[in-house]
Amino acid sequence: MIIIADNLHVMQPPFARALTSLDPVPVRAMVEACLQNGAQGLDLNPGPLRKQPEAAMVFLVETVQAMTELPLLLDTTNPAAMAAGLGACRGRAIVNGVSLEPAKLERILPLAVQFDADLIGYLLHPNSQVPIDAADMMALAVDLFQAVTDGGLDPRRLILDPVVAPLSWQDGARHNRAVLEVIGALPDLLGIPVRTIAGISNLASGAMPLDRKIALEQAFVPMLAAVGLDMALVNVRHGPTVEMIRLCNGLLGEGVFAWAAGLATSDSN
Amino acid sequence: MIIIADNLHVMQPPFARALTSLDPVPVRAMVEACLQNGAQGLDLNPGPLRKQPEAAMVFLVETVQAMTELPLLLDTTNPAAMAAGLGACRGRAIVNGVSLEPAKLERILPLAVQFDADLIGYLLHPNSQVPIDAADMMALAVDLFQAVTDGGLDPRRLILDPVVAPLSWQDGARHNRAVLEVIGALPDLLGIPVRTIAGISNLASGAMPLDRKIALEQAFVPMLAAVGLDMALVNVRHGPTVEMIRLCNGLLGEGVFAWAAGLATSDSN
Repeated sequence: MIIIADNLHVMQPPFARALTSLDPVPVRAMVEACLQNGAQGLDLNPGPLRKQPEAAMVFLVETVQAMTELPLLLDTTNPAAMAAGLGACRGRAIVNGVSLEPAKLERILPLAVQFDADLIGYLLHPNSQVPIDAADMMALAVDLFQAVTDGGLDPRRLILDPVVAPLSWQDGARHNRAVLEVIGALPDLLGIPVRTIAGISNLASGAMPLDRKIALEQAFVPMLAAVGLDMALVNVRHGPTVEMIRLCNGLLGEGVFAWAAGLATSDSN
Repeated sequence: MIIIADNLHVMQPPFARALTSLDPVPVRAMVEACLQNGAQGLDLNPGPLRKQPEAAMVFLVETVQAMTELPLLLDTTNPAAMAAGLGACRGRAIVNGVSLEPAKLERILPLAVQFDADLIGYLLHPNSQVPIDAADMMALAVDLFQAVTDGGLDPRRLILDPVVAPLSWQDGARHNRAVLEVIGALPDLLGIPVRTIAGISNLASGAMPLDRKIALEQAFVPMLAAVGLDMALVNVRHGPTVEMIRLCNGLLGEGVFAWAAGLATSDSN
């Protein structure tokens, strides 16, 4: 399981301010912290970028890749920003992402195809509603697989995200059991070893003591590992959560779940 | 996931001495510790009991059930001791256990049938060798299911144990990946919601710092929870391991994996 830091997020005020002022100093400090905390990939989430989308995204990608060659997940709903970011990426980029929402398929999917980038696909209904159960998720996976293939994407570029539910949701536990079931079933369902990603931070989002958040994340990470999750999007400042991912990788032997599309898996301890 | 204490074991010198002298005092102290540490069932492993098998097993069962109504797993290879223990049990007993080994099927299986007890079946070859991969485990599960059914056992009484490998084994990690796969697949394979049990203590057996053992157990427990394990045999003195089982039960909603055969699941926090 690859550790992707979700720390570079527009909801972090220093990051948001740096994006507005195009000031690389705070971004560098945040990237440095992610690297020290074990990140093996970085999700760059600058938000919708209504102002200066291209300049802000290019600034962000260039600032980060001046420090590291780790894979970058470009996490914006703004197609202009996505296109500019993909153009600026020297290494392999991952487009984060699309769903069956028509606007995403029309404006984001073609960019992944154009740049031959990996593409994250969320298992959500076209109106962005979450699926009601595992069967619903599986049907969405089939539809999404078909949609991105029809759009010209090499299916080996697809990474599916079944959308972890916050436990604060009324049906959060039931939803997440379905998430586990679906992650395990997707390769057989789609007939290819499709990669999967999950947002660990979603699980215990909201107001909750930090030690409780981390305990829940530590319980959830091995569950995801057991069903073969490939990429975990985590807050890498949650040290025990990151440590648990490493432990799971060691326990299961990372080789079996190695990243399929040419991205190095440097962590196999 | 039900927490079964594996602490009452002949390898514990005070327990072995108490069995020889039929002294209830040390046994009571050990049971009390198990209850305080969250046990929801107790595995009683007095070893092969070559001397006074009946008297020692009856002493053990009576001493324990005078203190608790928790389910008792009678864990001996001695058929005379098993018969005597089953006769002494007032509550539901669990016979631990059989495999495809002919002597077990001939002498232990009939006792489970006679006393209408739950029966643990180990996924091992008739010569007690461990299976080489998941397909081998599945074949053993089918054969064992057939053998115990042919022997007259109500198939709902069967609890399968796929035998967790120590990580110190050369192929331990690979074996345990197969264990996870098989636990998840067994209900579909056998066509009934067959229950499963696994020995968590096996994982990190041998010389290893205690904190490392507990960390590995904490990583492995949620993996087993994710694939639907029903009963975890653990050293309940490993508090963080027990705490992790509780957390997993909460995270997944224990109701879904409730114990099928009428044993109460008191823990659903």
